[in-house]
Amino acid sequence: MEDVAIIGVGQTNFSRSCGVSIRELCFDAYKEAMEGLDITNQDIDASITCSAPEYDKQRTPSGLISEYLELTPKPAFYVETVCSSSTTGLRIAWSLIKSGLHKVVAVIGFQKMSELTSREAAERMGRGADIIWEAPFGITMPAGYALYAQAHMTKYGTTEEQLAKIRVKNASYGAKNAKATYRKELSLNDVLTSDIVSNPLKRFDCCANADGASCIIVASEDVARKVTKIPIWIIGLGAATATMTMSGRKLLTGLTCSQEAAKQAYQMAGVGPEDIDVAEVHDCFTIAELLAYEDLGFAKPGEGVRLIEEKETYHDGKIPVNVDGGLLSKGHPIGATGGSQVRTVVRQLRGEATEAQVKDAEVGLVHNIGGVGQYGNVVILRR
Amino acid sequence: MEDVAIIGVGQTNFSRSCGVSIRELCFDAYKEAMEGLDITNQDIDASITCSAPEYDKQRTPSGLISEYLELTPKPAFYVETVCSSSTTGLRIAWSLIKSGLHKVVAVIGFQKMSELTSREAAERMGRGADIIWEAPFGITMPAGYALYAQAHMTKYGTTEEQLAKIRVKNASYGAKNAKATYRKELSLNDVLTSDIVSNPLKRFDCCANADGASCIIVASEDVARKVTKIPIWIIGLGAATATMTMSGRKLLTGLTCSQEAAKQAYQMAGVGPEDIDVAEVHDCFTIAELLAYEDLGFAKPGEGVRLIEEKETYHDGKIPVNVDGGLLSKGHPIGATGGSQVRTVVRQLRGEATEAQVKDAEVGLVHNIGGVGQYGNVVILRR
Repeated sequence: MEDVAIIGVGQTNFSRSCGVSIRELCFDAYKEAMEGLDITNQDIDASITCSAPEYDKQRTPSGLISEYLELTPKPAFYVETVCSSSTTGLRIAWSLIKSGLHKVVAVIGFQKMSELTSREAAERMGRGADIIWEAPFGITMPAGYALYAQAHMTKYGTTEEQLAKIRVKNASYGAKNAKATYRKELSLNDVLTSDIVSNPLKRFDCCANADGASCIIVASEDVARKVTKIPIWIIGLGAATATMTMSGRKLLTGLTCSQEAAKQAYQMAGVGPEDIDVAEVHDCFTIAELLAYEDLGFAKPGEGVRLIEEKETYHDGKIPVNVDGGLLSKGHPIGATGGSQVRTVVRQLRGEATEAQVKDAEVGLVHNIGGVGQYGNVVILRR
Repeated sequence: MEDVAIIGVGQTNFSRSCGVSIRELCFDAYKEAMEGLDITNQDIDASITCSAPEYDKQRTPSGLISEYLELTPKPAFYVETVCSSSTTGLRIAWSLIKSGLHKVVAVIGFQKMSELTSREAAERMGRGADIIWEAPFGITMPAGYALYAQAHMTKYGTTEEQLAKIRVKNASYGAKNAKATYRKELSLNDVLTSDIVSNPLKRFDCCANADGASCIIVASEDVARKVTKIPIWIIGLGAATATMTMSGRKLLTGLTCSQEAAKQAYQMAGVGPEDIDVAEVHDCFTIAELLAYEDLGFAKPGEGVRLIEEKETYHDGKIPVNVDGGLLSKGHPIGATGGSQVRTVVRQLRGEATEAQVKDAEVGLVHNIGGVGQYGNVVILRR
């Protein structure tokens, strides 16, 4: 079977409120992804739209976006695993191509969270926990990750300062990313003195709701070699779930869905954590980035803090992580996030990441989580 | 590459109000689908959950259902194309298996429309039209199909009586289907004298909201041959879209998404309409079944009425259609509908449809539409 490659990536600016409709957002991301490719709309065989539906006033947006991007009558599907929706879309795009059904698929992720008030958004986001057994008792997103932080601190002695250092790193790269919502550097003191959201997580330990869209154009080998100079090959794919209920989980010092997805992706790619030159991990909270260091095998359990203490996850370190600012700086427009992570790694592997290029990056990893560790996707890419 | 087969099908009773939670609904459908198969939960490599999200109080239900069915840590995805969601799930399951990523995938469709009041449901369903350009002007589901009916009547002289005969046929089979919401035979007079919903469509020309779930277990050839006596092979798949806006469409006497999807499916399967022994078509309204006769090539444009006039779509006719009662009798629990159609055709091809078995059925077709002809899926199955 032919290999499958990413041939185009695009992203809008992420912001607290974009002021345009979802169709316009998606068009902007699609336009950037198609730039410089020797194909047109007519060559797109199918589109996969990814978002968390509870924020959309438009029902079944995939048909609408397909029409607006002039992709009709090609099939259009909607795919969702909350915050990891667009890497789930990428997995499905890979399958649709690898199976021979399609040659070129567009994966379009978006979210316009400003359609709702913060209060409405918080209520709907809360419904991401089991609405019978857990949501009514307050397992919100920050509360869920705060439990993981507390467990990690208790078992390994991890400190609030160490978590804060992750935000300081990501803010330093966010400042260089023209498409990020937050472009200000932050000091350790800024982070440590910010308001408590859910103990021990403070405001600057948390990412923010945002508006934005991303797009990935995926193609079969024969098309990829024809239409682009630098195809980026999808060499590893892993996907897993954990129980939706926190009470059903045995481990609270790591995300089992990340561990399982990473295992699958490394095996499929024939590489290990030591081979990864650049990674984007799902830092919806500072603790989430720390857990990812360990779950992805960049550090042993309990030793992830050394990577940030020793600045090994900066762009000139041993394993650069989130050198585009991460979700913490970019903001987190749910359905668009995975596609934005993929865009960053693709630009790194192509050598186009002038803001913070990792030298000679050849193999990259994307780690994208849905909910409080319910869904985990890991994608490994090679130049 | 290996072939892909359906090895199990299941469905709950469809009803106006089921009185159980969505997880319990899905469990019942999954249980029936797994019955008699020589596999366990452990052998399910991934699950795809299909529904229209605006009816669910639970956000991101695929993780919840995966946990309840004890499929964790296997990947779980959510897929939506409104009323055709579960045949879209089937297409994706086929790709995931054909591409070599998985061996066995469960496609679980559900909808609990009774979670909302009729008024709430109507408001949310209306948002399936373009919410900027068409929904505010009243393009609801019945209004959209009424436009198609008016156009068909104007061009071909189709009558209300002819449409009513489709409901009479489907009601006669619904009366025999123990899982249907409506199990009463209807006379031509019953249909013709029922209240106007959207001229010329009357109450009995329309299907009803319902609660229900369906499940399809899909497997690779090697697994299928091992674990079941009668695998049903997926030999044709077609999928297409039309513009979301009615105003963007050139044809109102047929659904272009059906025509395009049928063309693809016939080509992939290497069969034509004359080879189909039994079909399930998307009769959300009587006019929709008539359009399907023509769009699928069972009759020429404008000549579909002959099939119902001459009773050729009854179970002993030339091309039996909806001999389980169709959506009109079963009710239409959006995400579950496609899976229920697949179940009927699989049971026919296995020779298990004792209620209305089509003699020697070997090749079957499923036609499943999302919205007012926005999304079209056609699946061709062979014993």
